[in-house]
Amino acid sequence: MSVEYTRLDSGLSVVTESMAHLESVALGVWIKSGSRDEQSGEHGIAHLLEHMAFKGTHRRTARQIAEEIENVGGEVNAATSVETTSYYARILRDDVPLAVDMLADILTNSVLDETELTREKHVILQEIGAAMDTPDDVVFDKFSATAFRDQTIGRPILGTPDTVQSFTPEQIRHYLQRNYTADKMIIVAAGAIEHDALVRLVEERFKDVPATSDDAAAPTAASYTGGDYREKRDLMDVQLLIGFEGRAYHARDFYASQILANVLGGGMSSRLFQEVREHRGLCYSVYAMHWGFSDTGIFGVHAATGQEDIPELVPVILEELRKVADYVDPSEIERARAQFRAGLLMAHESPAARASQIARQMLLYGRPIPNEELMDRLANITPQRLTDLSGRLFFNTPVTLSAVGPLDKLLPIADITADLAGNQPRQAAAG
Amino acid sequence: MSVEYTRLDSGLSVVTESMAHLESVALGVWIKSGSRDEQSGEHGIAHLLEHMAFKGTHRRTARQIAEEIENVGGEVNAATSVETTSYYARILRDDVPLAVDMLADILTNSVLDETELTREKHVILQEIGAAMDTPDDVVFDKFSATAFRDQTIGRPILGTPDTVQSFTPEQIRHYLQRNYTADKMIIVAAGAIEHDALVRLVEERFKDVPATSDDAAAPTAASYTGGDYREKRDLMDVQLLIGFEGRAYHARDFYASQILANVLGGGMSSRLFQEVREHRGLCYSVYAMHWGFSDTGIFGVHAATGQEDIPELVPVILEELRKVADYVDPSEIERARAQFRAGLLMAHESPAARASQIARQMLLYGRPIPNEELMDRLANITPQRLTDLSGRLFFNTPVTLSAVGPLDKLLPIADITADLAGNQPRQAAAG
Repeated sequence: MSVEYTRLDSGLSVVTESMAHLESVALGVWIKSGSRDEQSGEHGIAHLLEHMAFKGTHRRTARQIAEEIENVGGEVNAATSVETTSYYARILRDDVPLAVDMLADILTNSVLDETELTREKHVILQEIGAAMDTPDDVVFDKFSATAFRDQTIGRPILGTPDTVQSFTPEQIRHYLQRNYTADKMIIVAAGAIEHDALVRLVEERFKDVPATSDDAAAPTAASYTGGDYREKRDLMDVQLLIGFEGRAYHARDFYASQILANVLGGGMSSRLFQEVREHRGLCYSVYAMHWGFSDTGIFGVHAATGQEDIPELVPVILEELRKVADYVDPSEIERARAQFRAGLLMAHESPAARASQIARQMLLYGRPIPNEELMDRLANITPQRLTDLSGRLFFNTPVTLSAVGPLDKLLPIADITADLAGNQPRQAAAG
Repeated sequence: MSVEYTRLDSGLSVVTESMAHLESVALGVWIKSGSRDEQSGEHGIAHLLEHMAFKGTHRRTARQIAEEIENVGGEVNAATSVETTSYYARILRDDVPLAVDMLADILTNSVLDETELTREKHVILQEIGAAMDTPDDVVFDKFSATAFRDQTIGRPILGTPDTVQSFTPEQIRHYLQRNYTADKMIIVAAGAIEHDALVRLVEERFKDVPATSDDAAAPTAASYTGGDYREKRDLMDVQLLIGFEGRAYHARDFYASQILANVLGGGMSSRLFQEVREHRGLCYSVYAMHWGFSDTGIFGVHAATGQEDIPELVPVILEELRKVADYVDPSEIERARAQFRAGLLMAHESPAARASQIARQMLLYGRPIPNEELMDRLANITPQRLTDLSGRLFFNTPVTLSAVGPLDKLLPIADITADLAGNQPRQAAAG
């Protein structure tokens, strides 16, 4: 691998992958904090700060931020998630110094002007409104909130209209000072980039980032609760998520859980796609997903269908959960592994995908992970291990259900729980 | 450019771009027909055929289609649009023969089984339901239908539940025979690909594609009508599209219209983003777009906001239309050009983006277009040309409005039309 990694004295990490023959660069700052790091009275502040970063620094107005990067054909963007916030530029080779200067400026030198804040809160209210109008967004938000009841890890990243409107510049600054510190910050670039030159730029431009914060505190450990959320809406389709607690990034079963999600509902050849869509024609969209967090995870099945098909759909999904806990074919694991391997190779061919991949590895494991090592992690996943894992995932913790739409024909949660309990395969019952 | 182009005796075109140092390939078949080529009684059949292609051939079941490609870590997908249908694989270098064989099989050898058809119709009903539940999808569908009243170009690609349910295998086969012919078909690959080897594979596998069809007929010429569509829904946000007739791909003003859309609402530095979001905080999402078709186009402004902000938002959008017809700064054109140029360079670094780009050029212009020639097309775009074009686009044809959500505070269409007419700048009034 051509990955190079430098840890500055401040604790800030700089990682690059030089990709020969490219003209462009994907360059970003990943911060190991997100909505989960919000404290009492801060719900939505991580995302609000991400917006405010673009609203002006002591050197640039909001318009200058936008114009300087777009003048050279580049673009900047940012995203807030549960455990991570990222600021990201896509530029041509010669514009790396501009991008580094700009990212440093918006992350260390933000004005957090009161008038701009008032306007930006209003923008976020519209963003919240649009999310609430999109059933597919709502069902995921409510799923998280139900799986992790009354915890920062489960609540909506956007905040609520009330919390968003409550924040002062001082509160935002406090969140920033606590979280945007060098020990939590990783700068990654992939593409037409020269490592040493980037390190020098970062050393100079990011020198004002404090090394750490005395106020920083690890978020409260997550406690999966499970539960039942149903919201009746006058829609054509029911949006449905059925899930369970998944596995943390560092857990022994993390990669096995990823492979299991792929076997169950990862592609067109997956069990759910074949059974639910191809054989029964019940859904347009049906898939399984597994998300890891630092101390827990989510394993879920998403489907959307008209209410008349719900009585057939739900038992079929539960049956597929039972079946995968009974038997997994070696060819299914082989296929999932081939997809994982191809995904790794293709990520190496895209600056944006490669930068995200490296950043993720740095955030989770503290170092870039060679492809061979990643493939090794999949080497000892056997059918037996996946059936065992399925038993533990689906039949040993309470189910989480989230549903939005015309719900009259959706089974009561007690029936779903009883179905799962009654149908569990032998090995799960024994374990 | 390393683009190579071969036209087979059948009329089928094969175009490749070999991208050094890659391990993967993006390979697809683009067909110059789409929902607009549907005849009377065929509404939705182009999209239904695209689904049925994956439901089994005389050599492969639906499951085999999915498994063969996913076993090697590849993926296949397909898309139907107004004037194009595409089938597309992303694979590693060694799997090109498999991908070509598979794409040929599903496009020339489909069973169109009656039972599979019944099931797949049901899948599409769910797809229609999900689209109708997504306000952002509805507002675009209704915009097209209103801009081009009672024409195939404007109607929903998915069809309606009634039309989808009406189709027989014979009708689908008739659409296929009329449209999936070599003269309308382009095979493009970018990445780790060898041109001559691909040509040989295509010659062999696609030999059963008929050269042309006697039944083929060019779609009826589009006639932009404009109009007013309003659908009250109990939502948090109003979804709003305001637009006009745009320019066809071949039209002299096509590229100028693209640049104009960029200046008005293409990025964070665009006028609409700066005025509507940054200065006023009225919207989370606001942008302008220009879509070309073979004989017409669409120029539109999309925004979403809460109903209490609608009375401020609509006049501001109309004012920005007037302003851009009054004055464009040379720096705005420079910025749009820089973005266009960077986009071209970055597309050259992604197999998927590059394959789509080449396919698009083949469909529209009949040959791959070098970057320098594309940049040349932007060379003579002046401020004067954009202000003139704005006058003709916004003040000389009827407006199209599409709105979904809480609409009580949305101006009547007559007021919007009067505002546009009354506020038109001098040069437009004179022209």
